Amino acid sequence: MLHKITSLTVRDVRFPTSLEQHGSDAMVRTCVQLQQCLHVSHTDPDYSVAYVVLDTDCGLKGFGLTFTVGKGTEIVVCAVEAVAGLVVGKSLQEIVSDFRGFYRLLTSDGQMRWLGPEKGVIHLAIAAVLNAVWDLWARAEGKPLWKLLVDMDPKQIVSCIDFRYITDALTEEEAVEILVKAQEGKQRREEHMLKEGYPAYTTSCAWLGYSDQLLKQLCTDALKSGWTKFKVKVGADLEDDKRRCRLMRQMIGPDNTLMIDANQRWDVAEAISWVSSLAEFKPLWVEEPTSPDDILGHAAISKCHNRVMFKQFLQASALQFVQIDSCRLGSVNENLAVLLMAHKFQVPVCPHAGGVGLCELVQHLILFDYICVSGSLGNRMCEYVDHLHEHFTSPVVIHDAHYMPPKDPGYSCEMLESSVQSHQYPEGDVWTLIMNK
Amino acid sequence: MLHKITSLTVRDVRFPTSLEQHGSDAMVRTCVQLQQCLHVSHTDPDYSVAYVVLDTDCGLKGFGLTFTVGKGTEIVVCAVEAVAGLVVGKSLQEIVSDFRGFYRLLTSDGQMRWLGPEKGVIHLAIAAVLNAVWDLWARAEGKPLWKLLVDMDPKQIVSCIDFRYITDALTEEEAVEILVKAQEGKQRREEHMLKEGYPAYTTSCAWLGYSDQLLKQLCTDALKSGWTKFKVKVGADLEDDKRRCRLMRQMIGPDNTLMIDANQRWDVAEAISWVSSLAEFKPLWVEEPTSPDDILGHAAISKCHNRVMFKQFLQASALQFVQIDSCRLGSVNENLAVLLMAHKFQVPVCPHAGGVGLCELVQHLILFDYICVSGSLGNRMCEYVDHLHEHFTSPVVIHDAHYMPPKDPGYSCEMLESSVQSHQYPEGDVWTLIMNK
Repeated sequence: MLHKITSLTVRDVRFPTSLEQHGSDAMVRTCVQLQQCLHVSHTDPDYSVAYVVLDTDCGLKGFGLTFTVGKGTEIVVCAVEAVAGLVVGKSLQEIVSDFRGFYRLLTSDGQMRWLGPEKGVIHLAIAAVLNAVWDLWARAEGKPLWKLLVDMDPKQIVSCIDFRYITDALTEEEAVEILVKAQEGKQRREEHMLKEGYPAYTTSCAWLGYSDQLLKQLCTDALKSGWTKFKVKVGADLEDDKRRCRLMRQMIGPDNTLMIDANQRWDVAEAISWVSSLAEFKPLWVEEPTSPDDILGHAAISKCHNRVMFKQFLQASALQFVQIDSCRLGSVNENLAVLLMAHKFQVPVCPHAGGVGLCELVQHLILFDYICVSGSLGNRMCEYVDHLHEHFTSPVVIHDAHYMPPKDPGYSCEMLESSVQSHQYPEGDVWTLIMNK
Repeated sequence: MLHKITSLTVRDVRFPTSLEQHGSDAMVRTCVQLQQCLHVSHTDPDYSVAYVVLDTDCGLKGFGLTFTVGKGTEIVVCAVEAVAGLVVGKSLQEIVSDFRGFYRLLTSDGQMRWLGPEKGVIHLAIAAVLNAVWDLWARAEGKPLWKLLVDMDPKQIVSCIDFRYITDALTEEEAVEILVKAQEGKQRREEHMLKEGYPAYTTSCAWLGYSDQLLKQLCTDALKSGWTKFKVKVGADLEDDKRRCRLMRQMIGPDNTLMIDANQRWDVAEAISWVSSLAEFKPLWVEEPTSPDDILGHAAISKCHNRVMFKQFLQASALQFVQIDSCRLGSVNENLAVLLMAHKFQVPVCPHAGGVGLCELVQHLILFDYICVSGSLGNRMCEYVDHLHEHFTSPVVIHDAHYMPPKDPGYSCEMLESSVQSHQYPEGDVWTLIMNK
């Protein structure tokens, strides 16, 4: 079967999370304050997705998404529609037999390239489309995506990667070599994952908008459920941060792990001074202390928008942890490039997750990383946020603070049709209700 | 008068330049080849703009645009519409009395920020909107934009700049100091500009798609008109590049200036080897040899997408010429930051222009740079491309290969309404004619 793609539909799906201060961080907080002064409202994040469905001539579907935080999702939807013509009419076999070429076609269209290149809206849109293609492929093979990857031979994996602009850090030959070398022990690691799962940390306890009481309650519950690694959002007010980090450290004790995330709030000097003030609480890392573009500003951990940025952070020894993202990078293809570079530079990968569907997606990538690339769990863990999983047909399974490997075929990002319909923006029930209030 | 902004309209305006191979470069050529294999057509650049008009309660209008190369302009239009609500209802006075705050409001909206931040589609859209605001301001003052800037006092100029993420390279105090110091000789330099104009170089002679005969003819004509500095597009085929650079050098002689532009075609090692092969033709610079994100790839000259990227290129001594862009950066505000940083790092600024309206816009910025910041013309020149100026109400005036300072109030990017209507995509006459062929 060729699985010819006959149509692509994309929808703007938003969850009114701002009403509950889930997902609030320093950047959002600042904007709220700024915009309150200017009498503009509605700036807290509404976790959202541009949700893509591919139909094929044989009835099989592919589901993909990219994550956003509300306003402007319609721009990403518009961008997905603009690239749809490059996908519809092709067969899955045609795409995956030259996946590198197809990736290049999408990211380097002669005219669309100007709008990025490989960054921002257009890259988010391409991620949504490619996530759906990967989902379709995994379904066609009857495997969860991580298993599809694990069963591929090294040359086939490498054939999915666009090496343009990264050959000075990693060549195709080096990539194959890394994968071949990691074949040893693969079977054992796969069994280990199926039994124990991949270690996770939680960001659900300490959003900026939460009260101390809520933070304490959530922390107590998390400890009971086996969580040992916790992330705290910081960066809006130093005294407030100190109080919250102190509280958190008291709650979790000296042996559990604490991380802090400033969501791009600071200038370089400010970051250094602020973080020094929080050093007594012994955070393992500081996430996004400054602009995500600032390589030389020496972020300790960073989400980057493409493989070229990751390459430089690694070359400059400017990060100690690599935080991949299933929706900001160009899908599995570009994440493979980053996983391999991180291994070459011996930097552990700790994925970004949360939002809508990011946990569902990224678990596949980190399982592949452990089984087929890094072979190590040292200093590694995958972010977990306990939100919105109920909207997915195959939600993540967490057991004793570990991600259990998904078993259903695909990339785990199919949403319940009822959830999609009621959250479509602005016409879904959930939104008409809010707007009519 | 407060000049309250009562509405914002944005239109998708495209010129079918692909039919004539204007603007063809190595990246486009590669895509054409790639896509021809894949049976996808229409990939040469169609120079385009998202064109913004602001209406005010007093009848004065502001005109702004951002440049694109065709497909996907509708995404930028969608993004402009998404930020329109932050502009409409405000008065010009309210905006310019806290221009830094307004800039931050647009670039750091709590939800929209996710889509960049400060890059790609969303930053292009914000540039179009802010260009219109600056145009409105200059018109309200009855001055061309460059003169509005030249007449501002240093503190007011600095109050338009968002220093977030750049204070480790340039503080507000340093910026004021630079501007105060450059007051000396300002009057003399302004008179010099009014009399002689700002030196320009031409890219019109040597696009990749042009035949050798056309190149020769255009070069002969340009030399007769007084041009002494020429740019050649390279990067698709080395032997072809050698032939074209040799031809160009023969035409212009050993004393005139030659630059080459690879439009992001190469990996780092490839760039070094390719450029070495072209060294015999003595190019002054190599433009965009690799990914625009690759700071450590050491581009000799680069267009960057925001001030944070420029900062690092300067800090890393990775560029020898700064190439500002009036539409990719966040309008005048962000360009001011880059001009000041370039001065501090003692790197000459040679703006990117061409496309639609880029020459009209950027001439204002480079005049300001000479009169109020750098005070020098050494190794400095502004790109010029002889296309599409006829669609503007105040087109650039080139005299003896120099940009003559604009005299009309505003930022020179008002287009003829007849041009806008006939080139609106897809409903304008020009496009319905092409599509019906």
